[in-house]
Amino acid sequence: MQTDTYRACAGLVGVLGGMGPLATLDFLRKILAATPASSDQQHVPVLVSSIPQIPDRASAFRGTGPSPLNAMLDCGRRVVAGGAGLIVIPCNTAHLWFGELRSELGLPMLHMVDAALDEVAQICGPEGRIGLLATDATLDSGLYCKRTSNTLARRKVQWCLPTEAERSDWVMPAIAAVKAGELSTGRTLLQLAAGALRQRGAQAVVLGCTEIPIVLDADSANMPVVDATAALARQVVRWSMEQRNRRALATP
Amino acid sequence: MQTDTYRACAGLVGVLGGMGPLATLDFLRKILAATPASSDQQHVPVLVSSIPQIPDRASAFRGTGPSPLNAMLDCGRRVVAGGAGLIVIPCNTAHLWFGELRSELGLPMLHMVDAALDEVAQICGPEGRIGLLATDATLDSGLYCKRTSNTLARRKVQWCLPTEAERSDWVMPAIAAVKAGELSTGRTLLQLAAGALRQRGAQAVVLGCTEIPIVLDADSANMPVVDATAALARQVVRWSMEQRNRRALATP
Repeated sequence: MQTDTYRACAGLVGVLGGMGPLATLDFLRKILAATPASSDQQHVPVLVSSIPQIPDRASAFRGTGPSPLNAMLDCGRRVVAGGAGLIVIPCNTAHLWFGELRSELGLPMLHMVDAALDEVAQICGPEGRIGLLATDATLDSGLYCKRTSNTLARRKVQWCLPTEAERSDWVMPAIAAVKAGELSTGRTLLQLAAGALRQRGAQAVVLGCTEIPIVLDADSANMPVVDATAALARQVVRWSMEQRNRRALATP
Repeated sequence: MQTDTYRACAGLVGVLGGMGPLATLDFLRKILAATPASSDQQHVPVLVSSIPQIPDRASAFRGTGPSPLNAMLDCGRRVVAGGAGLIVIPCNTAHLWFGELRSELGLPMLHMVDAALDEVAQICGPEGRIGLLATDATLDSGLYCKRTSNTLARRKVQWCLPTEAERSDWVMPAIAAVKAGELSTGRTLLQLAAGALRQRGAQAVVLGCTEIPIVLDADSANMPVVDATAALARQVVRWSMEQRNRRALATP
């Protein structure tokens, strides 16, 4: 195994992906879309692990499957070995293990939920009512709702969540359908779930699972959306451009 | 830098990408499309370097820009460090440096042009006339035409190439347009180039630059196409599945 044989690469973003692989591509596509570039060389450098054999995050949270932590650490170490200067994870539910990953991998990380909540704060009135579509694990753990107090300190955001029936009939089957490549089925189910949140007063909806924005957008949801994947992609582009500008300034 | 801290991953495909980044995404998408899978865990594990700061391959071949070899080796070593068992490069022109890359990186590699020529052999009659759309460097170096004798030994394929004017007016500006994200302009120019090859008797056309199949397919080209990106993706899926099956058989 050869290491330490490559030069430093300023602004190299490590992506701990594969959860799922289509969501990782959607994230990479959104990094490209968020980058002002007219040639290859102006784009964000990324090193991507898309090793989808990581155990299912939602099952692990429910206690019905093995923990994904060791497999995620394994993938993270591959991008660390490749010289990344930042780690991001295009999977909301995986952020249940964010603390362990950050302390073990020893690199800066951007948190996807914070990126999404920053955009919620921009579009949301002082007492806005915001829908959230996500996995059971993300909803039950409070990954979004408990984090609100930090990032939305001055707002009184009211979360509007899917009911138990809406989760089991629509949201979770939709996510499984997208993972199986049945995009049209996934979209139809998510439109039902978004419609129910809208009827209960949601003014916008957070797409809080990376499979969801693959098939649902503001048009098909029929209301404004906050796409957590796109929010993280925009932060990644900003980080990488800052690092590369700093490097350029430091080079005489 | 941490290394040797992750487990072996059977069938892990290393992708030396970023040439350009959109073409790398197209390649990854085609790997997904070629994989029979209904859950994340059945997909091909990949480790991708998409560091688009690699010097332009076509300029280097013309002698008007620096060689991309050192930068490509640098990227290749990152995926070697991450534990890949195979290296592939979703950029046709980069294959001008295939020999140096293979001998320096010390891993098996699949050759994109061979993958495409295998598919040409399947659709082409004994004296078929095949068009080729590619960069000047790929055309002038004979990357496809000189390789024919090995892989199409029993066929008398006649290559039908764009004229100098067609390259400079249509093909090269189309590739630059796709790299700049101007997909509709790229498609229009390539349709003109494909139409000219068809008029000179081409029965099918090889899309021999990874920017081209992003915008051109059999429908828009108005004739059968051999997509080198998709051909390589299919070979990658086969390699990875074989490796993982072998590993599964070896595990008691």
